[in-house]
Amino acid sequence: MFEMFAVEVRDHVMIAHSFKGDLFGPAQALHGATFVIDAAFMSEKLDENGVVIDIGRAHEALKEVLEPLNYKNLDDLPEFEGINTTTEFLTKYVHDHLARAARENRLGRPGPELDAIRVTISESHVARAWYEARIA
Amino acid sequence: MFEMFAVEVRDHVMIAHSFKGDLFGPAQALHGATFVIDAAFMSEKLDENGVVIDIGRAHEALKEVLEPLNYKNLDDLPEFEGINTTTEFLTKYVHDHLARAARENRLGRPGPELDAIRVTISESHVARAWYEARIA
Amino acid sequence: MFEMFAVEVRDHVMIAHSFKGDLFGPAQALHGATFVIDAAFMSEKLDENGVVIDIGRAHEALKEVLEPLNYKNLDDLPEFEGINTTTEFLTKYVHDHLARAARENRLGRPGPELDAIRVTISESHVARAWYEARIA
Amino acid sequence: MFEMFAVEVRDHVMIAHSFKGDLFGPAQALHGATFVIDAAFMSEKLDENGVVIDIGRAHEALKEVLEPLNYKNLDDLPEFEGINTTTEFLTKYVHDHLARAARENRLGRPGPELDAIRVTISESHVARAWYEARIA
Amino acid sequence: MFEMFAVEVRDHVMIAHSFKGDLFGPAQALHGATFVIDAAFMSEKLDENGVVIDIGRAHEALKEVLEPLNYKNLDDLPEFEGINTTTEFLTKYVHDHLARAARENRLGRPGPELDAIRVTISESHVARAWYEARIA
Amino acid sequence: MFEMFAVEVRDHVMIAHSFKGDLFGPAQALHGATFVIDAAFMSEKLDENGVVIDIGRAHEALKEVLEPLNYKNLDDLPEFEGINTTTEFLTKYVHDHLARAARENRLGRPGPELDAIRVTISESHVARAWYEARIA
Repeated sequence: MFEMFAVEVRDHVMIAHSFKGDLFGPAQALHGATFVIDAAFMSEKLDENGVVIDIGRAHEALKEVLEPLNYKNLDDLPEFEGINTTTEFLTKYVHDHLARAARENRLGRPGPELDAIRVTISESHVARAWYEARIA
Repeated sequence: MFEMFAVEVRDHVMIAHSFKGDLFGPAQALHGATFVIDAAFMSEKLDENGVVIDIGRAHEALKEVLEPLNYKNLDDLPEFEGINTTTEFLTKYVHDHLARAARENRLGRPGPELDAIRVTISESHVARAWYEARIA
Repeated sequence: MFEMFAVEVRDHVMIAHSFKGDLFGPAQALHGATFVIDAAFMSEKLDENGVVIDIGRAHEALKEVLEPLNYKNLDDLPEFEGINTTTEFLTKYVHDHLARAARENRLGRPGPELDAIRVTISESHVARAWYEARIA
Repeated sequence: MFEMFAVEVRDHVMIAHSFKGDLFGPAQALHGATFVIDAAFMSEKLDENGVVIDIGRAHEALKEVLEPLNYKNLDDLPEFEGINTTTEFLTKYVHDHLARAARENRLGRPGPELDAIRVTISESHVARAWYEARIA
Repeated sequence: MFEMFAVEVRDHVMIAHSFKGDLFGPAQALHGATFVIDAAFMSEKLDENGVVIDIGRAHEALKEVLEPLNYKNLDDLPEFEGINTTTEFLTKYVHDHLARAARENRLGRPGPELDAIRVTISESHVARAWYEARIA
Repeated sequence: MFEMFAVEVRDHVMIAHSFKGDLFGPAQALHGATFVIDAAFMSEKLDENGVVIDIGRAHEALKEVLEPLNYKNLDDLPEFEGINTTTEFLTKYVHDHLARAARENRLGRPGPELDAIRVTISESHVARAWYEARIA
């Protein structure tokens, strides 16, 4: 029987970037965004404390992933060279870092007890993107 | 392995309508609603630009579907004759029009590369409905 | 020295209406809206219980004013005959009914101890109106 | 082919509680929360009225489940003895009561026509939890 | 007797910029923001149509002011040379352009019938700024 | 000519408390609340950096005031003995602490350059309170 718990926490970054490709129209120019990021950690079972993971730890884990991006021009970061740092791309970027933290047991709960992570990034009051995938 | 990207955009319409059936109580009378509509386009893979579909194109596609409804009494539209235009019904109505646009390659990405669409309609700060289904 | 307390409560109505005047373009047709209404009661001093007015009483007072409008076509209500029931107009309509309740001591606190009422009506996620005026 | 409708309604409770376990840090002390609760009822098919379940009935069903918790110290309720009433725990608690109401045909639609319920509890503007499971 | 009506509309821009001054810490680097902008137009009296100004016209007026900023690096715009384009600065920038439109009777209502404009800019879910001033 | 700038930041606390007085009905029992708190700092002029006060400093100042309350039973705090810690009361409590910080030049800007502070506390999605007063 399908059942799933989730805990989701919110943080944000303020970044500059530009896109390559006619598709992007005016967004090919250097511009920026406030990305409000929700990270949801999912598990089929609560631990002995009655939580998916500790909400405080979830906030810290998300902040650690975001810190290298905050107040940056993403075009200048070597790891993003040649990449369009679209909202969609960044949802997977945050997901992958959080999933690694889970697998390395850095979220305060054994990684195998967590099932999936979904990262949602709101770029304005009218547009957002998300990425969800299993951790293992 | 399950993984899914989504891009979601928001728009709204302001309509009048009435419902048939004792279930609806006072909502059997002619009344109205602001429907705030979120359309989420889902895909397992980003395209070569790094997007699910272009957010600008997504906004346009949603607006095209909503335009014939906006500032209308839905009871007067022939296509809704004999139908209760409930929030749930309208989520599927919007979905089906967007899914057709996807299949006809009108969203700026080949339809088969898109997996599903979810349409969420908020009718107030305390009630909403959604419909999600595969495109193909 | 200026100082002011306020307590604000939220409710909503779902109505149909139409407007007269070229200014309104497509909104001249019969359409509708969900109006999410915030009523703020203001006072320079808290009462002996430490409140502006009881929040439960504030919710009831707002609901009483809204009930005759909910699930109605405002064009059919005699008291609105010949009137454009714009969002702005309705903010004052709700204000005036609440102000009368205050003056008639029906809000659980002597009317003269309340200073002003502000009524805000959100008609969508991108548009709202408000009206603020003194009670006396 | 996967397809799913949902109707979701919102309510809230204001409770006190404390947690046992070093994990919780300062939240081991008696504190409290406003829990804003969204209950989503899901079905693959609309009924003959064009709804998942009546939104009014959904609001009532949620309120009935929440009433025994509202304005309470959860530590004092016998049914929660020895339990950490975390946000996650409470999502399942509300879910299970709503699922029972569905199975006992108390939601105005035969239980077997409903598929799943998801309960989301927001504990602040930056943290929430949810639980989703099938009804049967 | 004090009384005031207002109509407020929302739009947004996505920009890059940097700040000069130790006060700004990491925000001295090139970064960016989504600014969600609410423009409120205030008047003591409704016009003969029952509005402060037409909401459609308000949306257009705001969009006209924002268009030259959207998808730009504000550091590159000559009119902002040597200026910290803080959220506060931009609230007044938008206000002043809208106030000029009002005085030049470009808002569909004689300027002298409008009293004040308040511009609120949300830079994230936890921070915003506003500027309010009379038009005349 | 009236003109005013404001910068507003958000934080929250999770507390338990009870009220004395028949007015409060079931809220006389020990219960709790998540209080989402917005503190707005107002000034007629921006400083030489182009800000009212630094947003980072504003966040810190608010957090310092809230820390002694967070995860507490307010009934147990000596400074609140014999007081109903209503939402309204707490808006003034937070205001007064921030106003003192302003007067003591602890907000990174000379106190006399700040005019007023408004503190808004949302106790749920349907109720909030605020208190606004001059600093001097």
